[in-house]
Amino acid sequence: MALSGENLIAGGRSAAGPASLHGLDPTSGERLEPAFHEATAEEIALALEGSAAAAAETAAVEPERRAGFLEAIAAEIEALGDELIERTAAETGLPAKRLAGERARTTGQLRLFAEVVREGSWVEARIDRADAEREPLPKPDVRRMLVPLGPVAVFGASNFPLAFSVAGGDTASALAAGCPVVVKAHPAHPGASELVGAAIERAVASCGLPPGVFSMVQGAAHAVGAALVAHPAARAVAFTGSLAGGRALYDLAARRPVPIPVYAEMGSANPVFLLPGALAARGEAIAEGLTASVQQGAGQFCTNPGLTVLPAGAHADRLLEGAAALLGGGPAGTMVHPAIAASYRKALEEVSELPGVEVLACSEATGPWADTDARPALLRTGVGEWLANPRLGEEIYGPTTLAVVCGDGDEMLAVARGLTGHLTATVHGTADDLAEHAELLAVLATKVGRLIFNGYPTGVEVCHAMQHGGPYPATTDSRSTSVGTAAIHRFARPVCWQDFPGTALPAELRDGNPRRIWRMVDGERTRGES
Amino acid sequence: MALSGENLIAGGRSAAGPASLHGLDPTSGERLEPAFHEATAEEIALALEGSAAAAAETAAVEPERRAGFLEAIAAEIEALGDELIERTAAETGLPAKRLAGERARTTGQLRLFAEVVREGSWVEARIDRADAEREPLPKPDVRRMLVPLGPVAVFGASNFPLAFSVAGGDTASALAAGCPVVVKAHPAHPGASELVGAAIERAVASCGLPPGVFSMVQGAAHAVGAALVAHPAARAVAFTGSLAGGRALYDLAARRPVPIPVYAEMGSANPVFLLPGALAARGEAIAEGLTASVQQGAGQFCTNPGLTVLPAGAHADRLLEGAAALLGGGPAGTMVHPAIAASYRKALEEVSELPGVEVLACSEATGPWADTDARPALLRTGVGEWLANPRLGEEIYGPTTLAVVCGDGDEMLAVARGLTGHLTATVHGTADDLAEHAELLAVLATKVGRLIFNGYPTGVEVCHAMQHGGPYPATTDSRSTSVGTAAIHRFARPVCWQDFPGTALPAELRDGNPRRIWRMVDGERTRGES
Repeated sequence: MALSGENLIAGGRSAAGPASLHGLDPTSGERLEPAFHEATAEEIALALEGSAAAAAETAAVEPERRAGFLEAIAAEIEALGDELIERTAAETGLPAKRLAGERARTTGQLRLFAEVVREGSWVEARIDRADAEREPLPKPDVRRMLVPLGPVAVFGASNFPLAFSVAGGDTASALAAGCPVVVKAHPAHPGASELVGAAIERAVASCGLPPGVFSMVQGAAHAVGAALVAHPAARAVAFTGSLAGGRALYDLAARRPVPIPVYAEMGSANPVFLLPGALAARGEAIAEGLTASVQQGAGQFCTNPGLTVLPAGAHADRLLEGAAALLGGGPAGTMVHPAIAASYRKALEEVSELPGVEVLACSEATGPWADTDARPALLRTGVGEWLANPRLGEEIYGPTTLAVVCGDGDEMLAVARGLTGHLTATVHGTADDLAEHAELLAVLATKVGRLIFNGYPTGVEVCHAMQHGGPYPATTDSRSTSVGTAAIHRFARPVCWQDFPGTALPAELRDGNPRRIWRMVDGERTRGES
Repeated sequence: MALSGENLIAGGRSAAGPASLHGLDPTSGERLEPAFHEATAEEIALALEGSAAAAAETAAVEPERRAGFLEAIAAEIEALGDELIERTAAETGLPAKRLAGERARTTGQLRLFAEVVREGSWVEARIDRADAEREPLPKPDVRRMLVPLGPVAVFGASNFPLAFSVAGGDTASALAAGCPVVVKAHPAHPGASELVGAAIERAVASCGLPPGVFSMVQGAAHAVGAALVAHPAARAVAFTGSLAGGRALYDLAARRPVPIPVYAEMGSANPVFLLPGALAARGEAIAEGLTASVQQGAGQFCTNPGLTVLPAGAHADRLLEGAAALLGGGPAGTMVHPAIAASYRKALEEVSELPGVEVLACSEATGPWADTDARPALLRTGVGEWLANPRLGEEIYGPTTLAVVCGDGDEMLAVARGLTGHLTATVHGTADDLAEHAELLAVLATKVGRLIFNGYPTGVEVCHAMQHGGPYPATTDSRSTSVGTAAIHRFARPVCWQDFPGTALPAELRDGNPRRIWRMVDGERTRGES
């Protein structure tokens, strides 16, 4: 399929602005054809007006058809075959095998949301039946369920060009909820974005949905994203990226005449706590597992373990020695864009030069192109320095971890208390460690969205129970997840109908429960006909 | 019980600032003793520091004990007996009978949340079990549930001095979720607030909870509320009041270094649509029901029906004639404060003088004190004027409704499309009306949190299915409700535990389901032991 470089606007193509955007091969710096047209303000407005025009029809699409649409997108993505993997690999430098896995995750997510929609209980129907005899006032019949919020602006992420991008979890969950979507493609993979966007377009057409249900705009300028978020038709925003980017969108949305929710997942340092028993028993294995996690995807994971907190002593020294050897001798990762690699180098240099920070290892390996090299590193500091300098608790986006070496159990607790919000916290421990550090675990639970035991934070399971989120600055909305089936709830709000006859109610709320969904009826959960 | 006029700070009393605040009898203008001390910045900080210090212990309180605490608050409020009703009546001018009903609603809410906490399924536990054999990667064990957000700042409302005030729905749901609460008492009923605040204090003590779980500060200055919302320990804000007040708190919270959610319920105009069949069949009864709803509580209801949309014709003329007689001859309501009555008079005057607005009736009745008189009124305008002037879609807080007289069905639809967000919309119709106006209903469902059929919006049932909320400007968060058991979800966020042994998990997530709650296990809802 030839890439057009155009914006995908409500079923049509548009290239009103100058063509200014190119993909870039991060293994060579080579500019990839074609040029992409950054969306103009008018094109963005057209996309959102298309969304608004399609919102009512999209919301009214029956669950079976909506599920079929999500499955059709998955099939269209698979039908792109090797072309998608090749173009994505060319634009991101990510290995084909990893991208094939990511594609499977992407289509798997779409199909999982199709199941959720088909099953139908996600609308959280609640029914309180009337009681005309109640004193002093008759009790009304009240029935409540979730309805779609309306047009959602989705920002593609750089680090997962398929699973968190054009047809990623945000788009899948927003479409599943019944919302039209306008995607801002990430400028680091405009071609992969167009391929996937066109696949969605074909699914829209083959399912007979209104074309406005999906649009995609290209752009590298902040103005493109800002215009999306500021447009009156937008009802919610989903974003995965940097703290600066996410906060800027949040601020913009909060200043609108009509504020809208922003679900920005902004990464974090994902502290790993090594408790004494585990450190003594499995130090070598932890060094291997931890350094592998640090280097995964050139450190370009939101859940990259950027902080390692451990008690001082011979076991710590040995673990750090092992980790230093593994990271210091590690290969240079290839980051998806030279700007991202430059940020990594800058952050690493800045933190390395802070007082009390020691560089235990920094690989000197080189990759195919120096500008995108991400060299693994291991830093070390003490508790006093860490507590005194907030910069040491912030994410360094790339393959590095900062070891915070603690004096005793209380110092590890002090580090936990000193944490800001993170996506995850990991604890390695024995059964005795857990019993002795119950307070540490309790404190960590107030700081993160996910706690991991004897594992590593990278690798986020797509399932019902997943929580991929966390207190600010990990996200702008700790009440939500961007991975797993609960992500659908970000794009819906409750409406209740009081005293309406069944014919005027959504099927989910009718007597007899025709959709056979789980409902709460007079306070009792039931899937029955009552 | 003698009122002290002091602030209630984490179990202690404090009166560091000058005593500057008095209750006022709205039936006479008489200043009520004692003077209340507006909280200083230091006192507010102490209250929130107390909350923060109590947060972990509060979150860890077992469900049975937490339920008992809510029930103890209800019992302590009842134990205040007539003194509470008398003081509240003196400060608000609301009749004792209404206040007795409101007290029953308040204690009923507390006991309903106690049931929710005791039953326990509100934490939305989800469990996805491990599969070590899965290819290409083993599946982890992931378990997720809701945990409390932390300290909540609650703003008492003027119009429900018991049910939406110190121990109202916001406080009840935040405490139920496991959050400490700091209430800012509404300056229109400082004495009633102290009585109820002291009742909560006694329940805290008798249940052996940490004193920081509850504080209450007095204040009329905006600075008091602003300091509460800006304090770093605050994790969420609940507010019922004006659009200006709610938006100011929202803006403040959004500008914090760490933004926090603001649940501001800011009232609305609650449009009532009269469809032709109902208008023809029941015009007289509707005129009576509507005008009674308009005048309820001197129009001081968030759900007051401030807009009445109806098709022109003889039936409309007759209904408006009837309504004009009822409102024009209606008694003057007594508003809770002269400032609120002054706002009502000003808004009514402004809107009355807009081009195309006709005053069909305005009562000349007088109440006990002219400064708090709220005279019922009926205004009329046409669709063109209404669509052209956004002011005509905004709430006038008080006993009035603006009739928007429409040319045909399409014009009613145009009005519906022209609505901003409201708490409710009401439709009067026959079965035929409903069938013919399906699109109108669909549009209204996008504009409000609650649709009412053949009834009136005032009177909000406290139940599981209630949705008291709506798109902005009705609230700052359309995804939430401030009435009903779902209100508890405003103050919680999900956390998941990955691969932890049962001993380190909350009881709600353990194998065997010791709490016997509804959970989602591998995607299936079950209350069983699996």
